[in-house]
Amino acid sequence: MDAAALAGACMEAMWEVDATSRSNGISVVSVAPGEAVLRMEVGPGMVNWHDTCHGGFIYVLADAAFGYASNTRNQRMVAQYCTISYLNPAKRGEQLTAYAIERFREGRSGIYDVVVKNAAGTVIAEFRGHARAVAGTILAEKS
Amino acid sequence: MDAAALAGACMEAMWEVDATSRSNGISVVSVAPGEAVLRMEVGPGMVNWHDTCHGGFIYVLADAAFGYASNTRNQRMVAQYCTISYLNPAKRGEQLTAYAIERFREGRSGIYDVVVKNAAGTVIAEFRGHARAVAGTILAEKS
Amino acid sequence: MDAAALAGACMEAMWEVDATSRSNGISVVSVAPGEAVLRMEVGPGMVNWHDTCHGGFIYVLADAAFGYASNTRNQRMVAQYCTISYLNPAKRGEQLTAYAIERFREGRSGIYDVVVKNAAGTVIAEFRGHARAVAGTILAEKS
Amino acid sequence: MDAAALAGACMEAMWEVDATSRSNGISVVSVAPGEAVLRMEVGPGMVNWHDTCHGGFIYVLADAAFGYASNTRNQRMVAQYCTISYLNPAKRGEQLTAYAIERFREGRSGIYDVVVKNAAGTVIAEFRGHARAVAGTILAEKS
Repeated sequence: MDAAALAGACMEAMWEVDATSRSNGISVVSVAPGEAVLRMEVGPGMVNWHDTCHGGFIYVLADAAFGYASNTRNQRMVAQYCTISYLNPAKRGEQLTAYAIERFREGRSGIYDVVVKNAAGTVIAEFRGHARAVAGTILAEKS
Repeated sequence: MDAAALAGACMEAMWEVDATSRSNGISVVSVAPGEAVLRMEVGPGMVNWHDTCHGGFIYVLADAAFGYASNTRNQRMVAQYCTISYLNPAKRGEQLTAYAIERFREGRSGIYDVVVKNAAGTVIAEFRGHARAVAGTILAEKS
Repeated sequence: MDAAALAGACMEAMWEVDATSRSNGISVVSVAPGEAVLRMEVGPGMVNWHDTCHGGFIYVLADAAFGYASNTRNQRMVAQYCTISYLNPAKRGEQLTAYAIERFREGRSGIYDVVVKNAAGTVIAEFRGHARAVAGTILAEKS
Repeated sequence: MDAAALAGACMEAMWEVDATSRSNGISVVSVAPGEAVLRMEVGPGMVNWHDTCHGGFIYVLADAAFGYASNTRNQRMVAQYCTISYLNPAKRGEQLTAYAIERFREGRSGIYDVVVKNAAGTVIAEFRGHARAVAGTILAEKS
């Protein structure tokens, strides 16, 4: 399997057990080695005062994109340290898209940058996630 | 109203419109000026591989505690920049408690530290949130 | 003056009063709108145990690059919040280069990413700086 | 040796090779298990525009306090990830004091919080450092 096919296979395997994304209306638009694009609509259960999206749910979307991007090479990676900067509010009903790319990968460590934008292209948040490899693969080992 | 009563009144006003916490089973245990304690059970829709809680939901709990703690003085504050360190996994069905305290408050800026623990006292995550005052109060202005 | 010339003029004005960079052997390789490249040799007063560069000085270099990059448009910006990830050690005598780019700029806020590499291209650190515009310009106002 | 004496012995051993602190006029006021207090005067080579201390040097002081605090148990720890929030400017000639405490320590990981204040007690910066244990001790092994 080449790297792009492997990334796709890892995504399919993760998606099957990804209750969190499904229960929050998050969908995977695409993956590539070290990259992922995810989408979420700001639902009525995600808003707070003034009908703006709760920061926690913007984080959930960004973190999910980080998780898919960091697990595209069939090496299991877990989140270790994440930061998020809230730059513009997101409104109820808006479509948010998170674009995750790999900024650094070496040995057991990886750094991933995720930008979250609305449909108009306004930047809602910038996220940076640090992942660390743990034992295990995403795809089941062949017996 | 003294500071403790004001903190309680702000919490009540925020809770009324807090769809996010309610839809995720988060409850407010207590608030005090600059402080808040919130609780959440790791539900079946929050787990991923190996039945451990998705990092996004640990963040949602910590962020909610940060939000309540920073809005205890009837000055509306919004999240600007947050960091989270994942230190131990949380399992399905565990009760998680987030303890938020005010580390810095001056002018329009505040920094809040939140520790998330399970029922055994194991530290699951450490969170630090930066908030900034915006126009408006939590309680409706008297006419 | 076009944007590139303005960036150069701002850099010259900042350099004149930049005692910190000079006293640490930091030089400016280039600037462009929203960007800066700076260089520093790991001197004998910067090393700790095992002759590796003290993390504080890797930060000083990255922070200086952030400062030049964020002040290329004649709007004075100050550092508000910075993060650094140490990825590989730097040795005594090595030439370190910091590459700063603008990741976000809108209203009074800016986010800048800086990567620090050694001469072999090994990534030593990743830095992200948040800047905020304050009153004043870099270049003296014409009377 | 008890924990307090061990912390003092580790500090003495680190100080002997700490060229960075000495060349920047940093002194160690005290150490205790998981804690350290360091002091620095804002010298003429540390200031920028308007005679305020360059953020890089505030970081150097905070980072040094983090280094001493995390190495008080004779287990060598290295910095992995640090954040700093700049809250008030420091002026030329001011005495800055950094107070580092241990927020988390378990297995090979530690989190340390450092507050930097001037002589009047104004908070200049809040710093959080993540450290990781590496092979080796601070004190020479007995043969």
